[in-house]
Amino acid sequence: MSKILVYGGAGALGRCLVSHFKSKGYAVINVDFFENKEADFNALAKEGQTLVQQGQAIDEAVSAALGGAANKLCAIFCVAGGWAGGNAGSEDFLKSSETMLNQSVNSSFIAARLATNHLKPGGLLTMTGALAALEATPGMIGYGVAKAAVHHLVKNLAEPSSGLPEGVKVNAILPVTIDTPMNRKFMPNADHSKWTPPEDIAKQLEGYLTGASHFSNGKLISVVTDNGTTTFLEV
Amino acid sequence: MSKILVYGGAGALGRCLVSHFKSKGYAVINVDFFENKEADFNALAKEGQTLVQQGQAIDEAVSAALGGAANKLCAIFCVAGGWAGGNAGSEDFLKSSETMLNQSVNSSFIAARLATNHLKPGGLLTMTGALAALEATPGMIGYGVAKAAVHHLVKNLAEPSSGLPEGVKVNAILPVTIDTPMNRKFMPNADHSKWTPPEDIAKQLEGYLTGASHFSNGKLISVVTDNGTTTFLEV
Repeated sequence: MSKILVYGGAGALGRCLVSHFKSKGYAVINVDFFENKEADFNALAKEGQTLVQQGQAIDEAVSAALGGAANKLCAIFCVAGGWAGGNAGSEDFLKSSETMLNQSVNSSFIAARLATNHLKPGGLLTMTGALAALEATPGMIGYGVAKAAVHHLVKNLAEPSSGLPEGVKVNAILPVTIDTPMNRKFMPNADHSKWTPPEDIAKQLEGYLTGASHFSNGKLISVVTDNGTTTFLEV
Repeated sequence: MSKILVYGGAGALGRCLVSHFKSKGYAVINVDFFENKEADFNALAKEGQTLVQQGQAIDEAVSAALGGAANKLCAIFCVAGGWAGGNAGSEDFLKSSETMLNQSVNSSFIAARLATNHLKPGGLLTMTGALAALEATPGMIGYGVAKAAVHHLVKNLAEPSSGLPEGVKVNAILPVTIDTPMNRKFMPNADHSKWTPPEDIAKQLEGYLTGASHFSNGKLISVVTDNGTTTFLEV
């Protein structure tokens, strides 16, 4: 059975991915702070660890889940992340910046490391950036800086000398707002027809794997929803 | 006496800045892990702290050095940083990435916070990026990702709603290789006529402060040395 890994598989988008790939017959490993019972295996991270500690613990858990170095993943989808607003004058500027680095940058670095160790040649690695971070983000500085870092990481990983297994393909999807219960709760009056249903992203990522969706290596892919229709475009 | 702060004032470039500004009659605060005896005051950081802990401790030390909320800095020069090579397949990929985030991104976030609290209106904040990080850096992934994050931070901080005091100007200098004893030691056979003398950077930064050097707010400024002559250009 083909195996995939969802990094952040207990979040709203991640849960959707786990369900979607399970329904298509894949075996799914969830990496997250929280268990997702629907996944075949959970490699759980602990809070309060350094990047190195967390990376090592997760790598060992994923190795155990795969049960041997010969067993490889066909895809790693990193959809871990979070959001925090605030500029340099905000009371909690450093705290929210630290959280954004942990949630988006550290998870992406670890996903890259998991790809090095556990992705099969020609496999697929996707990260999650943010369309907003292509420009300045003065009202959400930590968030924008962290996502800009993820964008740069993806460009690096697509280079032939990045250290990833032969032929691995990598991109980043850049959503605007994903239609999650949390976002509905905090932005009840927003125009929800412009929010991206998680299912649309799950289908696109599966399409990358099956070849049904066009894949451009090393690219940042905007995810824009309008009137309920989602379009994926290279930026 | 006009006061400036050098973040990273015990490193090779930072020491040069401290000497230069002292020679021009400025009072200088050094923020670093190590003391610089030439500085008027040392606000020392501790290893192994979180971004929030380190930021708070440094902010308190700088407050004490300034001796009252009415006493403000006319400039903050963040030249903290370091270098590590390695791609995603390197044994110490996560370790070097973590170090790069700490040395370049965390210091820049804290410098931004210090600017919010202690820089006078119309004051000057400069960060240190890297010319290489404008493109992919697959052979030094952690370094490139961290510097790309710094570039984004600078763009954010230059926006009117960034939370910095009124009229503060900010940019990033993007050197290639700085002519330091450490770089001479590890790259003895490189073409040193293409390396940038720290003094050239010190003079440029002082020029920003006096008005002798043209300053473009929010810009990334390449620092390129050829045949011993250094040119600073907007990229």
